[in-house]
Amino acid sequence: MELWVEEKLGNFYAARFRVTKTLFSGASEFQKVDIVETLGHGRMLLIDDLIMVSERDEFVYHDMISHVPLFSHPNPKKVLVIGGGDGGTLREVLRHPCVEKCVMVEIDPVVVDACKTYLPQTSCAMDDPRADVRIEDGVAFMANSDETFNLIIIDSTDPIGPATPLFGEAFYRNVFERLGPDGMVVAQGESPFYEKKTQTSMLQRLAGIFPITGIYNYVNLTYPGCLWSFVYASKTHSLKHAEVQSKIQASGLTFKYYNGDIHRGAFLLPSFQAEHLESWLTDNPSE
Amino acid sequence: MELWVEEKLGNFYAARFRVTKTLFSGASEFQKVDIVETLGHGRMLLIDDLIMVSERDEFVYHDMISHVPLFSHPNPKKVLVIGGGDGGTLREVLRHPCVEKCVMVEIDPVVVDACKTYLPQTSCAMDDPRADVRIEDGVAFMANSDETFNLIIIDSTDPIGPATPLFGEAFYRNVFERLGPDGMVVAQGESPFYEKKTQTSMLQRLAGIFPITGIYNYVNLTYPGCLWSFVYASKTHSLKHAEVQSKIQASGLTFKYYNGDIHRGAFLLPSFQAEHLESWLTDNPSE
Repeated sequence: MELWVEEKLGNFYAARFRVTKTLFSGASEFQKVDIVETLGHGRMLLIDDLIMVSERDEFVYHDMISHVPLFSHPNPKKVLVIGGGDGGTLREVLRHPCVEKCVMVEIDPVVVDACKTYLPQTSCAMDDPRADVRIEDGVAFMANSDETFNLIIIDSTDPIGPATPLFGEAFYRNVFERLGPDGMVVAQGESPFYEKKTQTSMLQRLAGIFPITGIYNYVNLTYPGCLWSFVYASKTHSLKHAEVQSKIQASGLTFKYYNGDIHRGAFLLPSFQAEHLESWLTDNPSE
Repeated sequence: MELWVEEKLGNFYAARFRVTKTLFSGASEFQKVDIVETLGHGRMLLIDDLIMVSERDEFVYHDMISHVPLFSHPNPKKVLVIGGGDGGTLREVLRHPCVEKCVMVEIDPVVVDACKTYLPQTSCAMDDPRADVRIEDGVAFMANSDETFNLIIIDSTDPIGPATPLFGEAFYRNVFERLGPDGMVVAQGESPFYEKKTQTSMLQRLAGIFPITGIYNYVNLTYPGCLWSFVYASKTHSLKHAEVQSKIQASGLTFKYYNGDIHRGAFLLPSFQAEHLESWLTDNPSE
């Protein structure tokens, strides 16, 4: 018998991955959580039957959600990750020696525990002394915390289920409050091909709160449409950082997807995407 | 009953598209040819069960295979397309008023006839007076012709079946002969994620024949991995054309995917791709 996991988009598209073994199958009060071994993409985490992470291509997503803002920020000491229960974003954030502390607020302990056991590739940095992993509702944390951060990363699932409030205006007003004067926020921004409306509303919302807003793209193997985006906002600094190449070289860090070319190229959008987002793209450094 | 077309990659990945109607199902001496109506991606052409074109995203492929070289070449008057039986590349080439003649050499009359009837979106330019559509073997044409061209576009299927010789050295030596001193060739270059070896061997082959070689990327919805490439070679001119933005503006043409930003960004490669191709990327304009 051949086993496959299938992720459907509406009733018109589906991507299937061949499964060789089910490693974990559970449910929390929030959602269904599965980790499987696949034939072609390594281990894979699914939440409510949607693919979150595969070992084969997780480097793309995690490189792009973390290193683009981290190399753009002049001095990112305190970073907050909301969601990101697999730990991959935390892992990449902590590769930067300038980061003194990374708080990760994940709502679902079942995701964190399953990834600690079955996805060490992404969860390997959770015990780093600079990591502060909290099992809490990110929305409540953002409303009640009095800490401030240099960078906040919203590493969320799609705007359905427990992640829905992470796409709302009240949440982003709190994000603004929790950011210092040099603060930036980057958020999982869905697909330009299939989620035009979500991208527009996310950017519109951010543009009502922050002076600098924008979007950048990346391509992975496991999300429908493959071309996906991160939406961002910033209080002071551009993310289109002109000297990023020299900063990357000086860091001595190397990445499987991210590099100085990719940093520049990620902001260069196809016409069909640029046209409908144009009004909300306000990150225009003068250089 | 729900009908789906499914394209498999090895035995580990499959993409499925919901079909509402079969418009054409036939076979030539070369291959199986189907055109279906899908629920989410418009009409779709399949050859030997591999997806060639969908109405929803064909603009990406056709923009990128044609406008990148056409805006890089100083004066592309004569263009040759090998393959491209759906007509989409021919359509985009002929949008450039500077093109006086575009010869399209497609081996399979069944593809051309089916597309003329069921895919007018791509086949609409085949009767243009500047189009010369020939039903011939592209390999034989390239070996026997004495015409020369400014630009040759290899718009082929994967290196299996009738397209296999289009990836060979003998073919590219003939391409070199058929190009004038300002000539360029661009070829369908497969997936960086899944076809690393094909990309390496294509570039290696071109680098043995042409002084300038390179690769650029695009993202569509219907090919496995979605991040795909075009491989190119040139006798004189760089394709990383510094003044492309002003040329695009002067042309008055607009495109759904391609623009000056995308032209620049397409050459900026992820680390995992750049590293294994590095030796063969010889398009390094001095600016």
